[in-house]
Formats: sequence, structure tokens, C-alpha cells
Amino acid sequence: MGFVIFVNGLVLLFFAALMLVDGVLFNATGPVFVEGATLAGFVGAGLCLAAWNRISGLRRVHAFVVTSTVWITAAVAGALPLYFWQMTGVDAFFESMSGITTTGSTVMSGLDTTPRGIILWRAMLQAVGGIGFIVTAIAILPILRVGGMELFRTESSEKGDRELRNATLFATATLTTYLVLMAVCAGVYLLGGMGVFDAVTHAMTTLSTGGYSGYDASFGHFDSGFLQWSATLFMLMGALPFAWYIRLVHRGTIRSQQVRLMIVSLTVVILPLALWVSTADHIPPWVALRLVAFNVVSVVTTTGFATTDYTAWGPVAVVAFFLLTAVGGCTGSTAGGAKAMRWILVGRSVLVLIRRIHFPHTVAFVRYEGRRVDERVIGSVVAFFMFYAVTFGALSLVLAYLGLDLATATSGALTALANVGPGVGLLIGPAGNFASLSDPVKAVLSVGMFLGRLEMITVFMLLTPLFWREAV
Amino acid sequence: MGFVIFVNGLVLLFFAALMLVDGVLFNATGPVFVEGATLAGFVGAGLCLAAWNRISGLRRVHAFVVTSTVWITAAVAGALPLYFWQMTGVDAFFESMSGITTTGSTVMSGLDTTPRGIILWRAMLQAVGGIGFIVTAIAILPILRVGGMELFRTESSEKGDRELRNATLFATATLTTYLVLMAVCAGVYLLGGMGVFDAVTHAMTTLSTGGYSGYDASFGHFDSGFLQWSATLFMLMGALPFAWYIRLVHRGTIRSQQVRLMIVSLTVVILPLALWVSTADHIPPWVALRLVAFNVVSVVTTTGFATTDYTAWGPVAVVAFFLLTAVGGCTGSTAGGAKAMRWILVGRSVLVLIRRIHFPHTVAFVRYEGRRVDERVIGSVVAFFMFYAVTFGALSLVLAYLGLDLATATSGALTALANVGPGVGLLIGPAGNFASLSDPVKAVLSVGMFLGRLEMITVFMLLTPLFWREAV
Repeated sequence: MGFVIFVNGLVLLFFAALMLVDGVLFNATGPVFVEGATLAGFVGAGLCLAAWNRISGLRRVHAFVVTSTVWITAAVAGALPLYFWQMTGVDAFFESMSGITTTGSTVMSGLDTTPRGIILWRAMLQAVGGIGFIVTAIAILPILRVGGMELFRTESSEKGDRELRNATLFATATLTTYLVLMAVCAGVYLLGGMGVFDAVTHAMTTLSTGGYSGYDASFGHFDSGFLQWSATLFMLMGALPFAWYIRLVHRGTIRSQQVRLMIVSLTVVILPLALWVSTADHIPPWVALRLVAFNVVSVVTTTGFATTDYTAWGPVAVVAFFLLTAVGGCTGSTAGGAKAMRWILVGRSVLVLIRRIHFPHTVAFVRYEGRRVDERVIGSVVAFFMFYAVTFGALSLVLAYLGLDLATATSGALTALANVGPGVGLLIGPAGNFASLSDPVKAVLSVGMFLGRLEMITVFMLLTPLFWREAV
Repeated sequence: MGFVIFVNGLVLLFFAALMLVDGVLFNATGPVFVEGATLAGFVGAGLCLAAWNRISGLRRVHAFVVTSTVWITAAVAGALPLYFWQMTGVDAFFESMSGITTTGSTVMSGLDTTPRGIILWRAMLQAVGGIGFIVTAIAILPILRVGGMELFRTESSEKGDRELRNATLFATATLTTYLVLMAVCAGVYLLGGMGVFDAVTHAMTTLSTGGYSGYDASFGHFDSGFLQWSATLFMLMGALPFAWYIRLVHRGTIRSQQVRLMIVSLTVVILPLALWVSTADHIPPWVALRLVAFNVVSVVTTTGFATTDYTAWGPVAVVAFFLLTAVGGCTGSTAGGAKAMRWILVGRSVLVLIRRIHFPHTVAFVRYEGRRVDERVIGSVVAFFMFYAVTFGALSLVLAYLGLDLATATSGALTALANVGPGVGLLIGPAGNFASLSDPVKAVLSVGMFLGRLEMITVFMLLTPLFWREAV
């Protein structure tokens, strides 16, 4: 287990460095961040030193343990400055977990007057969490064969992608893409009239599909059509597969079934809803289109920015947003949720099945991006949906036990699991905030966000006896 | 298509006969039933005669069309006496569809003073619908390879079941079992103090897991622990596979993975919930156990009787009952929902997957009742869940569009699809009734009940172009 401890130590050291940066930039909250950096740095260094001589005998089980523990360590480290500042332990952990999982649910209010050092920290957590998740999803989950992600093992050995085989090179390319897109996004926000601080922090939370804002009115604070359309575009870009951008640059090809599904289904949802909102609320159609596009993209990409309380649009909007919460972006992006690839694979399986019902002796297979998909991959995807459903049910029940009503309990469980941010209902809807919830509820939701980000199976694997027999 | 028309004609003739029976038994509503019988009889005879010379060239597509149309014809026939009595067309169709699909949602109130002929008719619809569904599920769906039911194609050719191979013999055995259990149930109800009419009608709606009652207070009308425990037992028996009873008699074996899963999971749900209700509402534990056992069994078996407004037990109960609505009974019974077999198959697939993650070179298969399950069957089951989820989402959206709130729209869609009966929320909860809903909502829910009873795929197959290319 030396490797596990070592990696966690490194994570603490990295967060200590981030805290120092924040502390140097903003004097008002400087001491808080230095305090946090000192604690994280010492513990991190201690762990690294203690484990240094024991990094050997790496097994696949260790990859599971590292993947799971790293997110908890990061959440604890991220909570330190918030805790030293003035938050309770549970609130700080919730806010930090919500940040690094790029969920974006918040317990903080009065954001407009909150020290900018804290606002920057929340944005940093999401930016780091976003890139951390892409690396986890592209580099680690395929090795662990989790949730159908093994599909991408073959992809990287594909003919044209041979140059990307080197994992380091690929990680560098992804990181570069991420940072370039973030810089472009910040530039566009500046053009749209944001100040430098707002542009940078909102670019960080847009591209990471996190959705933390420095204002209580969320993105609605910026009353500009240009800014809202820009944010819509960049949220969408954060939810597209990063490998797609790299292929685009390397090979000039834009074909991607995931991307197409996302664009098509967003159009199918947004246009009728915009029409409905326009007629029902007597809003000009272009304003309705902007409102609906922004808020639907925000929920589907699991960002969680809001420009208005869309639950006030009536029951159709409430049910639509409730259902959309489960959908999610593309694999290999910063988005949460079930993801377009999995919907494609399950959908195709059903089509193949219908064909088999008609022609019992036909040999039909599921294809994805032109290649035949192994039945085992379909199995993994089914397992993912199964875990998703069961975890959703269990979390809803626990939240109800802790006193939440049906809408709040179920939409809270769903928004945490899919790392979206806002739920449905007065308390945790887009106009609400998680502050009024009890500590146990916040703790359960934190667990939900953690499970959702790790696509559940990674964590549940740790609970099987089979696993520990292999590990010991 | 001659065959399709002929079978539908037979269904009309059968319902005409049933109406005559009801009309003869109860003078007060006699004319209404004679009127209905005349209409159904003439149309039915006409269809049979018209198609008589054209019953040939039977193809598998025709089986799909027959299976789907028969339920609609039955619902229309069942609605006739209700319409002639005093109900509107939509109400009569809703009530009749709810009856023959053994859902049990009702738009009627003032049941205590409703003519007994009408009450008997509702019970008859459920009794006929229940046996009709078992035959569909055991005899027809496996041939159509729908929803994993093809698993039972091999089962009937199993060594020990050779004597049951003859479909007619098997149908007779099932019908006998059904009638015997119904008679026993009526006998027990008589012992418990019910009158003959109540005992017979309630036995009909208990064994068919339909849940229509002759009283506004549903089964709560009978304030007797003995009667409520008896009903709990017989609802459960209605949701067990009828092939299991036949095996029990023929071979004396009680082993069944579906039955075991149902008993175990009911126990796991009922005991803690009873404990919670007992402490939260200050009710003696044995009373709480009876209340919880009755209402949980009623929802899980998709019967839909209620003895109390369980949604008043607080948020845990609301969420728990909401989730339980999706579960369902066993395949080959009168119950609706997703069914225990499918949960077992999906659950096992996940276990096999976990084993494969650990040992990538292992050859592991899903087994059910000791036999290896073909991957195609798993595919059918996945398709079922997929259709279930998508249909649920679509129905919820349409219901919300028609003005229902989140809880009513989602639980209404779910309760219709799973053929349970009551939903969650003030309007359609166990203490409510569907009368106050608008006509379009009732129509949509009728479609939901129809789709749920036919396990969706059967109907959706009719919508694929592939299908009609084959059919023409």
C-alpha cells in the first residue's frame, strides 16, 4: 500500500502549493490559506517520506484504492482553508467535495460580499477537479474496466491515434486543450464586459462544468445576452470529449457519435421548451430561447449555473429538468451523469435486439464509432445503470429518512450523483441553496457526489470480499 | 389479418357472455348489461363471420398484432356497461382499462352505494384480465422473445416439465390453479366475516392483484386483523409464478429463485419500516407490522388495495412507496412492474461483471435456476428496463404538460406503467381517486396501463418500419 499513501501525499502537497498561490494573491484571506498550506504540506510531506521506500509490488487493486482515496484526500485538503476561514467542518467538506467533483452545489450565501480569496479557491477546486476527472476517466477507468470505459482501451490503439498512445503525451495534450479553452473562455468573458477576476474564475467554473459563481444570482448576475450565450457555448464545450478536440487538431475530423447525439438531443429539448416558455410566460421568443438554452445546457452538461428560477416555469419545466439531471455530457469530458456514450450503447443494444426479434437467425452486433463492441462492454454499461439506479434509490431513502420531502430527496440524490448542482424544490432548486439542510443531509449528499464522480463501481468494488482477498 | 379480426371477435363474444351473467344476477343494472351484451355480441359475431374464411397464412407478426389489439378490444368491451350505466366515455374506458390490466386505479367514488352489478363487473374485469395476462406472459411473450420472457421457452422443454409441454394442458392447469386459489381465498374471507358478495368480489380482485374494492375505504373497510392478514397472504400468492404452483403439485419442489427473492426483499423492507412507523406514530408494533405488511405487499404485488393513507407516515414512507412501485411481482403471475426475474438477471449480470473485472480471463456466465442464460436474454431484459425508463420519462412529461405537479406526474406515470393502482400525492395517493383528473390525463394514463401490461416492447414493435415491411 506504499504507493497509495505516496500518491495521496503528493495530492496534499499539490493542494498546499495551490493554497499558497491563493494566499499570496489575496491578502485579506492570506493567513487562512497559509495555515491550510502548512497543515496540508506537512502531512503530505510526511506521507510521501514515510511511503518512499515502499512503492513496489503495484497491483491492479491499488489502482482502485488510489482512485477512490485521492478524491477524499483532495476534498479534505480543499476544505481546510474554508474551515480555517469560518465554516463548520461539515459545510467546508461539503463545499470542497462539491467543488472538486465539479458538482457546484453550495452551502454559502452572501457570495457577493465574500472575500475574493475564497471565491478564487472555490473556482480553483473546480478547475483542478475537472482536469483530475478527465485524467481519471481517460487513463484509469479503462484499465479498471469500469462502466464501459474499457471501450476506450482499444480506441487509443486505433491506427490513426497511434501517436497518442503514449499516456504522458495524451495527458499533456488534454491538459493543454483544457487550459487553452479556459483561456479563450476567459478572453470572451472579458470581451463581454466582465472584470478580470470574474472572467477568470467563471471561465474556470464553466469549462470544468462545475458551476460555482462569485454571486448569489449565479450567472444571472451578468445581465448580458452575449455573456449568457458565450457561457452556453463554453459549458457545452466543457461537456464534449477532450479526445475529440485533440483529434480535431491532429486529424481535422469532427465526426463523433457522442457529440452528434448531444447536439441533436439538446436541440430537440430546447426548441419546444423555448416555444412553450415563450407562449406560457409571454416572453419574446429569442429571450425565451436564450433562457431555455442556457439553463438546459447548464443542467445537461452538469454545470449548474442558473440565470433564472426555471422551476417557476411550471410543471413541464420541473419534470423536464428533473429528468435531464440524469442525462449528463460526454465521456472523457468534465461532465457528470450517465453520459452520451452509455445512452448510445444501450440504445443500440435495444435496436440490435429488435432486429434479432424479427430475424432470429441474424447475427447482429452493437457498433460504436464504426467498431464492433464486445458484449462485455455492454455488460459494464448495464452494470453502471444498475448501480446508478440502486444508489439513487438508496440515497433518496436515506435523505427522506433525514426529513426531506419527495421532490427534495429524489432530486437531491440525483443532482449529487450526477454532479449537476441544483435540484428541484424550494430548498435546493436553482433559486435555493443547500445551507438550510441539516449536517447529516450534507454528509449524505457529499457521499453521493463522491460516488457519482467515481462512477460508483470503482467505490463499490472496494466493498466486495473478492476484492480484499485479492488485495491482501 | 383474418386471424387478428377473428380473435378480436371472439373476445367481444366472450365479454358479451360475461355481461349477460352479470345482468341476470343483478336486476337493478340488468338492462345496462343486456344493452352492452347485445352490442358486443353483434359486433363480435360480425367480426367472426367476416373473418371466418380468411384465417390462414399465420405469421409471427400477427401474434404481435393480436396480443396488442386484444387488450384494446377487451377494454372497449368492458367499458360498454359502465358507459351505458352513467359514466362518460373517457371515464368508462379508463375504469375498464384499469380493470383488465389489473391496475386498479379508479375514477369512481361513492362505491359503498354503487349498484352491486357494477361492482361485480369491475371485479370480473380484473379476474379475466389477470388470467388473460398470465396466458399472454407464459404462452405468447416467450414466442415473441419479449423482455427476457424467452427464458421460459427452454424451461417448458426441461426434463421434468415434459408433461407440461402441451400448451393446452398447461393453460388448463394454470386456469385451474387460478380458480382454486380464488375459491380458497373467497372461503377464507367468508370465514373472516365477509358476506358472500364481498368475499367473492374481493377474492377476484385479490388473486388478480387488481385491487378494485366495493368500498371507498378500499380494504380498510374491513376492520379485521384476520381479514387483512389473509388478504396480505393472497395478494402475495397472486404475485407468485403460477408455474411454481403447478410444479409444487406435480413434483413437490418449492425451490424458486424468484419466490425467494420476493420473500426476502419484502421482509427486508417491511420489518424496518414497521419499526419506524411503530415508533414515529406511537402505534403498537403488531398493528404497525400489519399495516406496513399489507400496504407494502399491496404495492409490490401491484394490487393497490389500501388500508390506510400510508403517505401520511412521512417522507420515508412516501419515497419508499414511490420506489416500490417500480419493483413488481414474479413473471408468470398476475402482477405488473419490472418483476423479480428481471431484477435477478440484471443483478447477476453485474456480479458476473465484477468477477470479470477481477479475473479478466475468467469465463463467467449468468445462471438462472441452474441453467446458463443466453446473452441475448440479458439483452432483452436490458431492453425492457430501457423501454420502461424512457416510457416513464415520456409519460411523466406529457402528464406534467397536462398540468400535474412533479409528484403526481411521476408517480402517476409509474403506477400506470407498473399496473399498481395508487400513486403518491394528494390527488392520486392511496386516499385519493383519479376522478378529479382531466380527460386527457385519464387518456394518457390508460395508454400507460396498456403499455405496461404488454411489457412495452410488444407495442413498440408495431411502430418499427422493419415490422411492417415484414407484415405486408
